[in-house]
Amino acid sequence: MELLDKLNWRYATKAMNGEKVAEDKVKRILEAARLAPTSSGLQPFEIIVVKNQDIKEKIKPIAWNQSVITDCSHLLVFAAWDTYTADRINYMFDLTNDIRGFENEGFENYRQMLLSTYPQKDAEVNFNHAAKQAYIAFSQAITAAAFESVDATPIEGFDPAAVDQILGLREKGLRSAVLLPIGYRQENEDWLANLVKVRKPLEDLVTVIE
Amino acid sequence: MELLDKLNWRYATKAMNGEKVAEDKVKRILEAARLAPTSSGLQPFEIIVVKNQDIKEKIKPIAWNQSVITDCSHLLVFAAWDTYTADRINYMFDLTNDIRGFENEGFENYRQMLLSTYPQKDAEVNFNHAAKQAYIAFSQAITAAAFESVDATPIEGFDPAAVDQILGLREKGLRSAVLLPIGYRQENEDWLANLVKVRKPLEDLVTVIE
Repeated sequence: MELLDKLNWRYATKAMNGEKVAEDKVKRILEAARLAPTSSGLQPFEIIVVKNQDIKEKIKPIAWNQSVITDCSHLLVFAAWDTYTADRINYMFDLTNDIRGFENEGFENYRQMLLSTYPQKDAEVNFNHAAKQAYIAFSQAITAAAFESVDATPIEGFDPAAVDQILGLREKGLRSAVLLPIGYRQENEDWLANLVKVRKPLEDLVTVIE
Repeated sequence: MELLDKLNWRYATKAMNGEKVAEDKVKRILEAARLAPTSSGLQPFEIIVVKNQDIKEKIKPIAWNQSVITDCSHLLVFAAWDTYTADRINYMFDLTNDIRGFENEGFENYRQMLLSTYPQKDAEVNFNHAAKQAYIAFSQAITAAAFESVDATPIEGFDPAAVDQILGLREKGLRSAVLLPIGYRQENEDWLANLVKVRKPLEDLVTVIE
């Protein structure tokens, strides 16, 4: 399967060379994230694409000074909703009705069920739930980058509150969840570039109940 | 890009026909999950593959009676570590050293950093972190299923504690995070099968900082 070849090709690139990724490739990587399935179809996240070098320089020190933050082409910041609100839920249900061109009683009942449960939950619980949905999209963006022969570095090692402040995310009801610099590997400066990929054997990962 | 075609083809299948998925396809879907990147490479989850119909019947009522639970071919249960422990961290670092055939000081320092921070954290925080890693793999399994022309239904709507009990997960230090029945669509019984896929427009999802 071609997908497995791409997943074997990719690795968490530790050094990039500053080369720019063509915008049509970036668009397809973002499109893969957009197509990701999410809980109740709410897509409870946004993606901030940082091309601005000054902003990247500000983020680098609060991300363990990882060079890929500044040497990448585009820094993708996956930011999840800080909570679920009635407006946010209604937006997606209304959009769905608009696109499909009809209302459906079962779907409207489902909307009411979400409206009567999600917004009342603790914001931290909601953010954690939204962040998991962002990770589904994040994962699809990583895969899409590999299909474009674009390198990417999944990064959780950063100070989310500081990134939120630099990007003004809290004012938008967002919180940074995970980073994905994309660009091109600088092999001779990347200690990980030529090391073998290590994964648990399938038999340690999977249990089959016959 | 072929990936986008596959992501457009897939949908959260609401009715399956009971047909079995060939084991070589299942294996490649699991392999995609195995190859998923995870934080510090720890792969803090396992996948329980339920083929047993009696167990599926037990899970169905605690998953909103969704028919795909029993009409799927294989029910994949993504179960995250209940917490990070020294043993679990050491297993992956030792495995990495074994496979690569050498020890590296930087890598050993990194091991010590994780050992001195992760196991001491609140178990709920650790489980949430581990669950996010499971979502990355879950996402890759969804994509891999599409590449195999296999339908799949991402399911968060279930009682995790009940699934944990049915599968004996807590005793293994695991907690169910998300379900993925895989199989083949039964189009004439699936209200969602012929509805257009709805996603936010890219401009609502993405903000570019030039």
